[in-house]
Amino acid sequence: MKIDLNCDMGESFGAYKIGHDEEMMPFITSANIACGFHAGDPDVMKRTVHLAAIQGVAIGVHPGFSDLIGFGRRNMALSPEEIYSMVLYQIGALTAFAKAEGAAIHHVKPHGALYNMAATRADLAEAIASSVVDADPSLILYGLAGSELIKAGQKKGLKTANEVFADRTYVQDGTLTPRRLPNALLTNTEEAAAQVVRMVKEKKVRTIDGSDIDIDVETVCIHGDGAHALSFAQIIRTRLLEEGIRITPIAKAETV
Amino acid sequence: MKIDLNCDMGESFGAYKIGHDEEMMPFITSANIACGFHAGDPDVMKRTVHLAAIQGVAIGVHPGFSDLIGFGRRNMALSPEEIYSMVLYQIGALTAFAKAEGAAIHHVKPHGALYNMAATRADLAEAIASSVVDADPSLILYGLAGSELIKAGQKKGLKTANEVFADRTYVQDGTLTPRRLPNALLTNTEEAAAQVVRMVKEKKVRTIDGSDIDIDVETVCIHGDGAHALSFAQIIRTRLLEEGIRITPIAKAETV
Amino acid sequence: MKIDLNCDMGESFGAYKIGHDEEMMPFITSANIACGFHAGDPDVMKRTVHLAAIQGVAIGVHPGFSDLIGFGRRNMALSPEEIYSMVLYQIGALTAFAKAEGAAIHHVKPHGALYNMAATRADLAEAIASSVVDADPSLILYGLAGSELIKAGQKKGLKTANEVFADRTYVQDGTLTPRRLPNALLTNTEEAAAQVVRMVKEKKVRTIDGSDIDIDVETVCIHGDGAHALSFAQIIRTRLLEEGIRITPIAKAETV
Amino acid sequence: MKIDLNCDMGESFGAYKIGHDEEMMPFITSANIACGFHAGDPDVMKRTVHLAAIQGVAIGVHPGFSDLIGFGRRNMALSPEEIYSMVLYQIGALTAFAKAEGAAIHHVKPHGALYNMAATRADLAEAIASSVVDADPSLILYGLAGSELIKAGQKKGLKTANEVFADRTYVQDGTLTPRRLPNALLTNTEEAAAQVVRMVKEKKVRTIDGSDIDIDVETVCIHGDGAHALSFAQIIRTRLLEEGIRITPIAKAETV
Repeated sequence: MKIDLNCDMGESFGAYKIGHDEEMMPFITSANIACGFHAGDPDVMKRTVHLAAIQGVAIGVHPGFSDLIGFGRRNMALSPEEIYSMVLYQIGALTAFAKAEGAAIHHVKPHGALYNMAATRADLAEAIASSVVDADPSLILYGLAGSELIKAGQKKGLKTANEVFADRTYVQDGTLTPRRLPNALLTNTEEAAAQVVRMVKEKKVRTIDGSDIDIDVETVCIHGDGAHALSFAQIIRTRLLEEGIRITPIAKAETV
Repeated sequence: MKIDLNCDMGESFGAYKIGHDEEMMPFITSANIACGFHAGDPDVMKRTVHLAAIQGVAIGVHPGFSDLIGFGRRNMALSPEEIYSMVLYQIGALTAFAKAEGAAIHHVKPHGALYNMAATRADLAEAIASSVVDADPSLILYGLAGSELIKAGQKKGLKTANEVFADRTYVQDGTLTPRRLPNALLTNTEEAAAQVVRMVKEKKVRTIDGSDIDIDVETVCIHGDGAHALSFAQIIRTRLLEEGIRITPIAKAETV
Repeated sequence: MKIDLNCDMGESFGAYKIGHDEEMMPFITSANIACGFHAGDPDVMKRTVHLAAIQGVAIGVHPGFSDLIGFGRRNMALSPEEIYSMVLYQIGALTAFAKAEGAAIHHVKPHGALYNMAATRADLAEAIASSVVDADPSLILYGLAGSELIKAGQKKGLKTANEVFADRTYVQDGTLTPRRLPNALLTNTEEAAAQVVRMVKEKKVRTIDGSDIDIDVETVCIHGDGAHALSFAQIIRTRLLEEGIRITPIAKAETV
Repeated sequence: MKIDLNCDMGESFGAYKIGHDEEMMPFITSANIACGFHAGDPDVMKRTVHLAAIQGVAIGVHPGFSDLIGFGRRNMALSPEEIYSMVLYQIGALTAFAKAEGAAIHHVKPHGALYNMAATRADLAEAIASSVVDADPSLILYGLAGSELIKAGQKKGLKTANEVFADRTYVQDGTLTPRRLPNALLTNTEEAAAQVVRMVKEKKVRTIDGSDIDIDVETVCIHGDGAHALSFAQIIRTRLLEEGIRITPIAKAETV
């Protein structure tokens, strides 16, 4: 048994700092790096790609809406064509930094509102999958476990990674409990770790209604901001290892 | 004898239109495509790369300052490190669109204030040349004929292209007459064509002081906006052909 | 009988030009001036306010989403609190230019997606109305005839103006036929003029289903872009005058 | 004897936080609030204006270049006309928030690169002073002590405030030691406090060359970011009070 631990990275911007990228790197196996639209800037991208590369962390593109004020978390009504170009642009930008570092891009994981919209809207999901295929068909597409984005990736022939969240709860249909609801977050770290272990070992998760549902998981998202990010990551990691689960990046697809 | 004709392209943005890209394509051999910083947006980049690719026009990156209001024409005091990352980012972004189109990037030509600053400041010129090398050492670096940018490119082992302007006049030191001066522009098309022909054939240009200076030229910039852009391009092209000068893109360097 | 003719203005941005502001001014009585979010920039705002002021055209704030690429036409999921601050900011910015010109702001009309969202969502409509009240309770709030925005303005004690569109068709519930439908636009100018005249004189409009509905109208929007904008404006104006309808800006509310 | 203590405020942006605005408010008498160009966003402006208003801190406009990545600290080559419109826009935007809060604007202090450029370039200084006059001639213009900005304000009939920096050293001509030099900053708080006290009481400051120069001072800038901002502010304040110097905002000019 094995699992990938991913984390959003490179979200600082100019004089503004978010996250503990340097400290988090040792705990994760893949980094989703912001590309200057919802967060990040060219200098931050350069530094973050370097940080990941020297520690052997798989480098992922983390494209988002062009909405820095909203940190890419506010839905925007873009057409599939606009989504395609917007994602392709961001993949290209990060790829240049990876190449300059002598590294390669490993995966693409949409951010925030784009991620959520692509989880349920097939047309947007397909636009994202198309941009990934056109950029590099060997890239892995990360998406919410069982979502439209995963289906779109599979349909386009991409390798995909079903993603779960260590600190979020689930509802009956397999989607995340919306953040506005009181029990959306698992604040107890041991409980979160136990949920992750069970998802990996049993492919099951208990919903907020108390029933068990099936869930596929190839990668677990842990958050890099917040006061307890580091200790949270450490505990998740320790519990997974104690259970004999190998923590390792997902192998890239053979190039078509 | 041969020459490359280049033109700035893809400068539209969202609902805003600038230039006559489609109409200009047949007259040129290389296109400098804006990358969303001083002009252009991801959808415009996609369309413009496609337009160039289907007509066999060489695709160039046209990076500029992140100053859409000023169209990248206002100097900004960025450090060489910031310039490096900013240019690398834009090269990457356009490269993704070229790749998606099954085409390759041919050259990099900085835009506006970035171009002018790199003509005289060796540190910025080297930052730009480094980003080109790190993105792809087979790319050709376009710069003002005889400028620091050309020198920096040569120093870094890049193939370079000395650029002249069809509709601009020159001063004694080989730089362009500043736009604020009354005789900065050649408004007579035949005069402009004659100047281009002479630069290509004799490697000489007459300055506004009336003296002749030496000038190297591998590529001529013609402008795609303005009411007379098309007829101007046509005349330049015709005069060059009449003189037996071949109009062709510059051959890319062998990849190191 | 009287009517106000309004037009969106000041939509140019830096080197980018949209519209025929100078030529349209004589035909209208109130101008909705973009504030740098979806279109416009500080210099354009200054020039446009000046143009309106010297011709006695009433100056309106035209706030929109911060989405220049999408020209403010793409829905964005902002909270009412974010909408409030975003609109207040834009009202303030334009007010400074009016004051510097010795003129006063007359009205506020949201732009594009913000206008459409505020037509149906009471919470956003109230956020906009609150920002207008807090900026200056004597300002007139323009909104789609009979919409939530008009209701929110009335509820907050603002003077409101029901707006109709000269070149758009209507559906049964009094809203505009969506632009994606084939018969959304009236392309025949005389037909458009006749529809406006009828709306003003009879307070009726024929829907695309062929039935008549009631409609309130205090102001008519005519568009300033497009090839036929000027002749369209001229014809609308002539027909209204021929019918004895006075073309005049709406009187401002007495300051509370 | 009396002095004003000012601090840059409202520099957070969306999800990004900079400074300790709430904690700093009790220590200062005037707040320079960012306006969304180099820092700040409409929601942050609203909150910061409210924070200042409820504590009786004088509200100042802190306009900067539209360069969020560079935090407004990178020189940009704008024309005086562009500077005028850009500053007027930002004054207007903040004024709306003050008005909504039932408060008034007290002063204008340019930020970062704009401040520094206006200290030495008379044409830009006059553009800024003109925009302040046109927005509200009763506003106080803050500028580097003895700078062109102060002169331009006086020339335009504005009340001005010579500003000194608590934690910066000075060179022979009365300007600040450039930040790139090793002794640009006073890191010892007591030394900084002693320098401020002397500037207020004796109107003298010792330069880094060891000679004394005359300096006018009506306001002292203390920084709100950095780990020691609060204790630094507290010590400066205590030392000034111990010397019998009253800490109070500058009285506004009578409206012309």
